[in-house]
Amino acid sequence: MEDESSFIKQIYEQIEPIDQSWLRAAGERQLTLTKPPTSLGRLEEIANRLAAIQRTLNPRVTDKRIYVVAGDHGVTAEGVSAYPREVTAQMVDNFLSGGAAINVLGRAGGIEVRIVDAGVDADLTDRAQLIQAKAMRGTANFALGPAMTRAEAEWCVAAGVELAQVAASDGVHLLGIGEMGIGNTTAASAITAVLLGRDPEMVTGRGTGIDDEGLAHKIEVIRLAIRVNEPDASDAIEVLAKVGGAEIGMMAGIVLGAAAKRLPLFIGHKSTERGHAALIEMIGEQPVLDLCMRLGEGTGAALAMHVIGAAAKLLSEMATFEDAGVSDKERNQL
Amino acid sequence: MEDESSFIKQIYEQIEPIDQSWLRAAGERQLTLTKPPTSLGRLEEIANRLAAIQRTLNPRVTDKRIYVVAGDHGVTAEGVSAYPREVTAQMVDNFLSGGAAINVLGRAGGIEVRIVDAGVDADLTDRAQLIQAKAMRGTANFALGPAMTRAEAEWCVAAGVELAQVAASDGVHLLGIGEMGIGNTTAASAITAVLLGRDPEMVTGRGTGIDDEGLAHKIEVIRLAIRVNEPDASDAIEVLAKVGGAEIGMMAGIVLGAAAKRLPLFIGHKSTERGHAALIEMIGEQPVLDLCMRLGEGTGAALAMHVIGAAAKLLSEMATFEDAGVSDKERNQL
Repeated sequence: MEDESSFIKQIYEQIEPIDQSWLRAAGERQLTLTKPPTSLGRLEEIANRLAAIQRTLNPRVTDKRIYVVAGDHGVTAEGVSAYPREVTAQMVDNFLSGGAAINVLGRAGGIEVRIVDAGVDADLTDRAQLIQAKAMRGTANFALGPAMTRAEAEWCVAAGVELAQVAASDGVHLLGIGEMGIGNTTAASAITAVLLGRDPEMVTGRGTGIDDEGLAHKIEVIRLAIRVNEPDASDAIEVLAKVGGAEIGMMAGIVLGAAAKRLPLFIGHKSTERGHAALIEMIGEQPVLDLCMRLGEGTGAALAMHVIGAAAKLLSEMATFEDAGVSDKERNQL
Repeated sequence: MEDESSFIKQIYEQIEPIDQSWLRAAGERQLTLTKPPTSLGRLEEIANRLAAIQRTLNPRVTDKRIYVVAGDHGVTAEGVSAYPREVTAQMVDNFLSGGAAINVLGRAGGIEVRIVDAGVDADLTDRAQLIQAKAMRGTANFALGPAMTRAEAEWCVAAGVELAQVAASDGVHLLGIGEMGIGNTTAASAITAVLLGRDPEMVTGRGTGIDDEGLAHKIEVIRLAIRVNEPDASDAIEVLAKVGGAEIGMMAGIVLGAAAKRLPLFIGHKSTERGHAALIEMIGEQPVLDLCMRLGEGTGAALAMHVIGAAAKLLSEMATFEDAGVSDKERNQL
């Protein structure tokens, strides 16, 4: 739709680079705190970035939210996953009743976990706690043709932007994203192969845990999908429409919307799923954690939020050398 | 003292290996939880280990404590640190008034932080919240002779064992250690060089942040200390007495005492301080976190405790495939 397309463009244009003067001011504040300079390592980097995003030397990360976005994938017809397709809807119910890993980690970290139906192939309209944003009942099988239309892809991204805007107006300080969708590492790997211009073999992993034969088949399916659809790597919406998924588009929209609202997101965790390292390298950021996980659901984000929140508290709450009456390095050098 | 020596030996003999049957049972339980097998990576390892230590499939890590142990070092007379010696006592006061990094991280993680005077060169007897366990007012300068007597070294280790026993009887589920002591990376590097039989250059770092010239000098001081004292690497108490420190001995005692009481400790964080990686390799365990920190105080432990606590909650609280009505992998393979 022309409407969603121009909305996404407008959001994209609202995104500003990190404010360098706040970044510098935060770095200077760090030097006054009772610790050797830079001895908090990545936590100082994270805190300074939060300070620059929030434009304060007392960054706050008390209200944390993760959107877990679910969708089904037509490509499961090709037998690319170790689990049956109905698991997506079953896991949505598990999320809603609090039994999944992300629920446990949300409780452990004081994080609000909100579940979104972006494209699950089941009627879930009676789930009161579920955010209803269904683009379709599962994508089409992208081994045969596009996963969705360009208009559907834009609708998903725009819906994601709106989720970020809701979080911003709810006063959320830190946002995370997670996904659930049987078959979606096939879509993610296809997108990664196209965006990075790499052979699918280099960026495709075992997802939920397929064996060697299954992995070889999954790679062939992705090669076929790219041949059939010929996505233009310079047109992200086209790549999403042709070999993506509803939940992937919605998460992309959340990222765009959060950036436009100066709502922080970090790369929380480096997955063992093969393509993730390549994507992180492309973005040029360091993940906060590396705990050899590959579950999804936003579990990496949930664990990283504790570190990010701690980084903010250190900058905001630590005593200075002057306040605490502690001799600074300089005094020793007289 | 003969008494402390036999006490330490007795504690050492109480330490049992991890119970393999509980480890297996926890691994089997993990397979029933609503996630692909092993997809929680290191968190599954950590949770299974906790289950085996606590001998339950519902490990609990709600009561967490860190002992921050402080001591001074005679070797500061050689100019090995970027900060003046009085900073140790000043930082103890900063800990007691809640302004240091470890206090902030303790509050962020729901961790009780207890401060211990193991050998600070100041009269701190009027600090009501400070655990008084002073072995001496700073060690002797080990560039000239032993840092302390063998009896003092044994007293420090025994006092550490007792701190762990207090934690166990207080119902603590997870214990961490931290240190404060200007000059103590010189002692730690000397111990590491002796235990690993490496040249001090390979295991000595910049501590609080000395420059190239300072680092070269620090390495020379450590070489001299090892020549002067000739510690026997096969006798850990001798190494501690000759080139160690009071807080280092007390932390070693806490580790021994915790192990004997089946009170879990993990390697929380890999420091950027040079010798730490070599020690971790020797122990053969993986640190939970790597956030490029080198502050000490138990800051790495505090951050890791969130991950460890989360791992325990996942094993204890996640729904099983059966409970949640989610199709398991097997069903797809029929």
